[in-house]
Amino acid sequence: MSKTDILIIGGGPAGMVAAATSKQYYGEKKVTVIKSGEHSLVPCGIPYIFGTMLDSVEDDMVPCGSRSQKMGIDLLIDSVTSIDFDNKSVATEQSGAIEYDKLIIATGSIPKKPKNIDNYDAKGVYYVPKDPEYIQKVYDNLKDLETIAVIGTGFIGVELAGELAQGGKKIHLVGSRLLKHAFDPEFSEDMESLMLRDDIEFHKDRRTVAIKVDESGRANAIVLDNGEEISCDGIIMATGYEPNTTLAKESGISMRQYNTIYVDEYMRTVKDDVFAIGDCAEKRHFITKRGVPIMLASTATAEARVAAANLYKINVVKSFSGTIDIFSTVIEGTCFSSAGITEEDAKKQNISATSTVVVVDDKHPAKLPNSNKQTVKIVAMKSSGIVIGAQLIGSTDVGEMINILGVIIEKKMSVYDLLNLQVATHPLLTSAPTNYPIIQAAQNIASRQIGSDI
Amino acid sequence: MSKTDILIIGGGPAGMVAAATSKQYYGEKKVTVIKSGEHSLVPCGIPYIFGTMLDSVEDDMVPCGSRSQKMGIDLLIDSVTSIDFDNKSVATEQSGAIEYDKLIIATGSIPKKPKNIDNYDAKGVYYVPKDPEYIQKVYDNLKDLETIAVIGTGFIGVELAGELAQGGKKIHLVGSRLLKHAFDPEFSEDMESLMLRDDIEFHKDRRTVAIKVDESGRANAIVLDNGEEISCDGIIMATGYEPNTTLAKESGISMRQYNTIYVDEYMRTVKDDVFAIGDCAEKRHFITKRGVPIMLASTATAEARVAAANLYKINVVKSFSGTIDIFSTVIEGTCFSSAGITEEDAKKQNISATSTVVVVDDKHPAKLPNSNKQTVKIVAMKSSGIVIGAQLIGSTDVGEMINILGVIIEKKMSVYDLLNLQVATHPLLTSAPTNYPIIQAAQNIASRQIGSDI
Repeated sequence: MSKTDILIIGGGPAGMVAAATSKQYYGEKKVTVIKSGEHSLVPCGIPYIFGTMLDSVEDDMVPCGSRSQKMGIDLLIDSVTSIDFDNKSVATEQSGAIEYDKLIIATGSIPKKPKNIDNYDAKGVYYVPKDPEYIQKVYDNLKDLETIAVIGTGFIGVELAGELAQGGKKIHLVGSRLLKHAFDPEFSEDMESLMLRDDIEFHKDRRTVAIKVDESGRANAIVLDNGEEISCDGIIMATGYEPNTTLAKESGISMRQYNTIYVDEYMRTVKDDVFAIGDCAEKRHFITKRGVPIMLASTATAEARVAAANLYKINVVKSFSGTIDIFSTVIEGTCFSSAGITEEDAKKQNISATSTVVVVDDKHPAKLPNSNKQTVKIVAMKSSGIVIGAQLIGSTDVGEMINILGVIIEKKMSVYDLLNLQVATHPLLTSAPTNYPIIQAAQNIASRQIGSDI
Repeated sequence: MSKTDILIIGGGPAGMVAAATSKQYYGEKKVTVIKSGEHSLVPCGIPYIFGTMLDSVEDDMVPCGSRSQKMGIDLLIDSVTSIDFDNKSVATEQSGAIEYDKLIIATGSIPKKPKNIDNYDAKGVYYVPKDPEYIQKVYDNLKDLETIAVIGTGFIGVELAGELAQGGKKIHLVGSRLLKHAFDPEFSEDMESLMLRDDIEFHKDRRTVAIKVDESGRANAIVLDNGEEISCDGIIMATGYEPNTTLAKESGISMRQYNTIYVDEYMRTVKDDVFAIGDCAEKRHFITKRGVPIMLASTATAEARVAAANLYKINVVKSFSGTIDIFSTVIEGTCFSSAGITEEDAKKQNISATSTVVVVDDKHPAKLPNSNKQTVKIVAMKSSGIVIGAQLIGSTDVGEMINILGVIIEKKMSVYDLLNLQVATHPLLTSAPTNYPIIQAAQNIASRQIGSDI
């Protein structure tokens, strides 16, 4: 039986960051990562393989093998078949049993399949797992197809639809309003008007109830809940992901909502010396404190860093009491970003919230070249003014601006705090200091309180 | 004698934001701004009038007149000659005395003139005040000149030198390493190699000791401290600014270091119902707690919002205990940003600090179009790991990324807090979640502590 110090199951973003961080902290320890193939894909990069941005599946690959070697991490291409928590060892398909001192479970997530729909796994129906070989197959198969149905209007569905259209396909996009979990309705409307292209037909608020196949069993049409039948050459199911936790569950670890592995604030499971991180680990929402199925590489890698820091002694208290949903995307060249809770979701959760929207020029003066409009919406608690959500539209810089709001939300800052926020502004890079939109939005909300009792 | 509720002296960024915010909070109050001309310039936009970015001085103007009218602010084009704090009134050049209920002094700053240099105010020597008429004169006069000496290597000097060169001039730039107050030496070196253009000659670490004039009294050369004499057709003095506080001082208000007006955390002066904001008001450094001559529109406007909120009742406690220097600029298309204290300055101030530099790709995977390198340097307290400074190099998005670090510094977050920072990442917009550079830098510093005692 072989032996390692720190064993990590899974080599996605969480697993690889946990390995690298462990090695950085505990240079003398033997760190082993078990994963199914030598390469990984950049998960959020997958849509861009199918358009004009990347030239091949390879362009989206992370060379885990060479990187691991450079950092002194042992990479084992294999699969774990069971975990023996009592004897602190795992069984593998090809390498026998491996004893560990510390174990990190980072098995990620897999596409959710809509098993209630007939032919959901027929030929010509594709999913979007983070598996280079499978994605290569999708890439090769889609090449000669003309009309693709994309089912699902979350990030992967919307980005894939846009990229496939850029790449010359005719797209049928089926689902609810765009990115409804991350954005309020008026933002979805903006996205939808940007995506009004001849080559994308959006079947809004429609559900797919059936998939039709030809004599060879190959999918050739979808049927919507209004009875409409849409012919297509291929179908992409962007219908979400579920934690890949069968191994953990069958090995007898304590589970939580959404099939996630229970973890505490230090990313420890109930088993001694066993941590879980990333999409397979439980997430609690920073506001509602309830379990949430948030699956984000940035969250996963943050958890990886916390776990690595706490492997041998508790070093890092999670200062953020819960997971924040924080996203960016680009739709037809316009960037959309979101952090925290939407106004719609706040209402649903019965949170007493208020909001404001500010639109400014993102250069100052606006006559400068490449000046664009920038939209900032802030959602705050009505009583305390604490910021709980934000949504942005603009040029590429909103991709970092949302991270300002991420920190603001995580640090529970209020709109009153933001009145004296000190920001760098520059004519060529930002809006004017006189109307920097995060501060202006804070002031709009603050003004409902200030001045009312003089 | 006329009367107003809220009187603001000065219509720069601080004054105008104070007026707009006052009107937003206290809609029923009469708000009056006294300024010397109907228009203002965007202060940081001035350099871009002289290159290829803006077409005229007008393009950099803020139409204060029409904006004020729209917001119900009374704009009075006049000058205040004295303030009678006891009787709560000001005397003006043309409009007689005006009584106020609340007074906000926002008189800004004016160019510092190096009076120890002969001919410092000769014909052909230009300063950079925020005065549209003067800048128009400079613009007209420079038009036909070929060789310009720019004295001073702060933001205005460096930006003007770059823009004038873009506009076809031959430039002699004289001063210390570039932007030395905001950046560490290695960053200045990067800037200097970017500015290695045939049309810019940088006389590094040289001081100007004399200005020579022709028979008509017009400046035609500068003499450096090494004796070198440089012929030129015009000279721009970008040698800093000083608070414009003669009026306040002569009216008998309490002053502080650097000729600034004393203010407390609520922007109140020692006089009842009198506030001071912006470049004319005292600033204390957030780390050293000492007076600092920081003059930034973003700081000024933050103070304006605090003053306005606190005019009638204390509403807003300044949550940031001091002023943070936070800047961005663009040098030959590359963006440089800085927040807080540099490592060099930390050493000078005898602060026990440590630092790290991380370089990443700003898109992921790096094969995506327009991917560039992004450099992040973080300076932290050695013992607590609290972040006290940051410097960035990259594409336009670092202009907002520095504001993430601004909040981190202001909220006194440590590198340990940053290990579980939750950020939005996206292939087309940011570096990978696996190596988001702010977090990676934090981890580098944290790793010097974590792992050392297992």
